[in-house]
Amino acid sequence: MKITICCTDTNQQPWLAGLQAALPQAHVSIWSPSDPQADHAVVWAPPQQFLDEQPALKTLFNIGAGVDALMALRIPASTQVVRLDDAGMSVQMAEYVCHAVLRHFREFDGYAHDAAQGRWSYRKPRRKAQWPVGILGMGILGQRVARSLQAFDFKVQGWSRSAKDIPGVQTYTGAAQLADFLKTSKFLVCLLPLTPHTENILCQANLSQLPVGAYLINVARGAHLVEADLLALLDTGHLSGATLDVFRQEPLPEGHPFWAHPRITVTPHTSARTLRDESIAQIVSKIEALSQGHAIRGVVDLSRGY
Amino acid sequence: MKITICCTDTNQQPWLAGLQAALPQAHVSIWSPSDPQADHAVVWAPPQQFLDEQPALKTLFNIGAGVDALMALRIPASTQVVRLDDAGMSVQMAEYVCHAVLRHFREFDGYAHDAAQGRWSYRKPRRKAQWPVGILGMGILGQRVARSLQAFDFKVQGWSRSAKDIPGVQTYTGAAQLADFLKTSKFLVCLLPLTPHTENILCQANLSQLPVGAYLINVARGAHLVEADLLALLDTGHLSGATLDVFRQEPLPEGHPFWAHPRITVTPHTSARTLRDESIAQIVSKIEALSQGHAIRGVVDLSRGY
Repeated sequence: MKITICCTDTNQQPWLAGLQAALPQAHVSIWSPSDPQADHAVVWAPPQQFLDEQPALKTLFNIGAGVDALMALRIPASTQVVRLDDAGMSVQMAEYVCHAVLRHFREFDGYAHDAAQGRWSYRKPRRKAQWPVGILGMGILGQRVARSLQAFDFKVQGWSRSAKDIPGVQTYTGAAQLADFLKTSKFLVCLLPLTPHTENILCQANLSQLPVGAYLINVARGAHLVEADLLALLDTGHLSGATLDVFRQEPLPEGHPFWAHPRITVTPHTSARTLRDESIAQIVSKIEALSQGHAIRGVVDLSRGY
Repeated sequence: MKITICCTDTNQQPWLAGLQAALPQAHVSIWSPSDPQADHAVVWAPPQQFLDEQPALKTLFNIGAGVDALMALRIPASTQVVRLDDAGMSVQMAEYVCHAVLRHFREFDGYAHDAAQGRWSYRKPRRKAQWPVGILGMGILGQRVARSLQAFDFKVQGWSRSAKDIPGVQTYTGAAQLADFLKTSKFLVCLLPLTPHTENILCQANLSQLPVGAYLINVARGAHLVEADLLALLDTGHLSGATLDVFRQEPLPEGHPFWAHPRITVTPHTSARTLRDESIAQIVSKIEALSQGHAIRGVVDLSRGY
């Protein structure tokens, strides 16, 4: 069995060592052009040339949760695309989103501002009933984030393309129910896959349906957000702030208005990192399952794009 | 039945209205000197005169979790002191502590510092195995905080005066096991009651047993902490930072070195506020239980002081 690794922006050597150690019978290598055909590939944002040279590839393991970079490529018809189920990402996402929600809900920035001036301040505690959290995208990550917020007694509602039944979460489905979902989401968390249907979903028309004072958290993809629309809604005060981990262009360019905006928190696409050891273990177990003819989880539906 | 209210630093009128509405047969009033004897009192840091004038008081309901302010007073021998079981405080405490832990663990201050300079930075993700959380005090609040941190996969250990058996939490008991507890607590969260045994427990001798780089969170009482010892351990780098919600003198005095310290976060005793409606409901249900001769939870052991 031959496994090839083709991950841009990644130190590939530890992936090579880890996969080889776990699968000593396999031939594992880092891809270079004109390499012989592989059975399985471990990739992150590979070039089109890589796919064009691998027409008989059986499996393409994407080492992130979002496969939008792959969807832009021509993938051989017989290749199945597999994304990581979780591999330590969902707890990181829960940490990131809960931190952002609690920071805003408990007004920790306001207290920090007061403390910087040596001021012992009083703020009337906010009531959770006035701060329901709406999650766009109720996949593995969205459900994990929902559970974590529920543990702090937040009211959580979710919106997704297909109907879901999630304990304690009021769910909304499809375009017809988006407005009802938005108008009651005081926090809006975007955890959608990026597809032609979801690109630009965080636009003026949708964001302006949120309650006045709503707060946006985008941890999905930069292309979900129409940047100018967010800035306009912050200017009018309709939105109270935003925490953004993803951007149309990454790294976020020098001089971009998000960097210095007083009500936008920018982090460098750090909400949920791929953890190498966990990911290698998951890929290895899937390769073993496939070689024994078993079904595996995480196979991407190319017609949906996630 | 006569109920009197004697709460300093508190708007007492809504307490009066809430208790009177819930107990229409009772005579509820705000205390003034030389008032007639009451059966039950609802208090926060009352003056000694109040207690001296109420020798036949049956129950003293303290509207906070910590009863240390009461313990400094002479309490009539026949009066039982009752503290609130929870009344919405434990979830607030879980929010506050989880926010502080996640903020430091995920290095959000470091990212904010980089972002302020327009810098897209990379930081190697920290591993939770290196960041166990130790909680001093495993009462209602400590156990709730432990559960919330466990939900994010943190390893949690607890120390308390009496032995406790808490699922998934390694527990340490008494002075003999304090050193073992401290040396493996990379985060130290103080949620102890303030008693003569716990005053100054956060001192040089104890804090210096924490691992290098440890982070302190004090949400109990200011008198648990020897302030100069914390500053010295931050100076040497033994401790990486602290989040403090409580202080020896509150409000924290103007010009106090904590206000401007770059690695200390100061909040104005806001971690867990008494929620009036929940507290009134709990006091009413306890008064009703007592009038029917039932036992109630939250009775303070005056010999222990909590």
